[in-house]
Amino acid sequence: MRVGVLGTGMVGRTIGSRLAELGHEVRMGSRRAGNEAAVEWAASAGEAASEGSFEDAAGFGELIFNCTAGGASLEALAMAGEVNLHGKVLIDVANPLDFSGGMPPTLSISNDDSLGERIQAAFPESLVVKALNTMNCSVMVEPGRVPGEHVAFVCGENTGAKERVASLLGEFGWPAARIVDLGGIAASRGTEMYLPLWLALYGKLGTGDFNVAIERAD
Amino acid sequence: MRVGVLGTGMVGRTIGSRLAELGHEVRMGSRRAGNEAAVEWAASAGEAASEGSFEDAAGFGELIFNCTAGGASLEALAMAGEVNLHGKVLIDVANPLDFSGGMPPTLSISNDDSLGERIQAAFPESLVVKALNTMNCSVMVEPGRVPGEHVAFVCGENTGAKERVASLLGEFGWPAARIVDLGGIAASRGTEMYLPLWLALYGKLGTGDFNVAIERAD
Repeated sequence: MRVGVLGTGMVGRTIGSRLAELGHEVRMGSRRAGNEAAVEWAASAGEAASEGSFEDAAGFGELIFNCTAGGASLEALAMAGEVNLHGKVLIDVANPLDFSGGMPPTLSISNDDSLGERIQAAFPESLVVKALNTMNCSVMVEPGRVPGEHVAFVCGENTGAKERVASLLGEFGWPAARIVDLGGIAASRGTEMYLPLWLALYGKLGTGDFNVAIERAD
Repeated sequence: MRVGVLGTGMVGRTIGSRLAELGHEVRMGSRRAGNEAAVEWAASAGEAASEGSFEDAAGFGELIFNCTAGGASLEALAMAGEVNLHGKVLIDVANPLDFSGGMPPTLSISNDDSLGERIQAAFPESLVVKALNTMNCSVMVEPGRVPGEHVAFVCGENTGAKERVASLLGEFGWPAARIVDLGGIAASRGTEMYLPLWLALYGKLGTGDFNVAIERAD
């Protein structure tokens, strides 16, 4: 499959490399073609890896990952262009973290709204699925590095799109039973507002190699 | 130990009954002595159970549980009286859920502040420990009803107070290894902002008998 990965940070590079390793054609997009991190990534990620602008990457992909910083995601997606996102599955991995007030970050959107909802509202013809935003990128693409029955949450308005995302997560190593569908895109509020707890746990544990499992009575 | 439980809802009654069952003397407090739910609870919870005003309950307790609705907690604690909370461990179980806009609720305090912090700021001579607000009350007092290594978070400024709370949680059935100290009271932001995810999971699972475990690489 051809995948567009928007964002050249650690999350975009990690997801892009994993997709290329799995045999997908991946184009990484950034504000301008020729971004240094993207060029370096494309050179190292094999023949199926390329880079370009947000517009290039979104036009290339049959499926798009939003791995931009949450505070810049709406602008990045606007640069990608509605026409290049129309009708496509758009996996939103971003969190609207605001570091402007120092550490710990706050959320620039929260409580009665979420980044996932804002993206779906801005691009109503895209099939937005919020996923993978509740863990470190190393765990996103290689869940086996953390033991136990830990989970990946997905939410979005379109069932078929969530099934396609679940299938791709399966390629990453996520068993279907550990992909938890929380319902519509408004459930992004929950997975995004989990970030402050994630950050506290990250500080406590001193590693990003952790994730939550849901234990329940039978 | 003498314990004051503020709040006559399901959480207060469940915690109060468990404390009485464990041999503690418990006084449940509400806006006015003689509250119907509190009187009924006191009649059913044994000889060590009594009820009164917020002020009565706080004055009675060596340790205080705040089990009032989060939106009313600061007012309830003001009615309890600073003198009755001074120097005491105050376990804040409440979440600042705001149902005024319908379901799902939002948080009336969040992001750059939390109910736990507001309470500590309003009562600087109390030893506020945020705890147990990330699960159903049935699980709070009987963790064994959910299998697995699920956890209880605590946070607060005073280490000795957190140790006393951990000890009481131990009486409820929480092994020490499953009590996760997240640091100072500002970590309440994380445990309170987890509520939207908890609510989504509650809707998904159709039961409150669940909780999160933290899985990590060794």
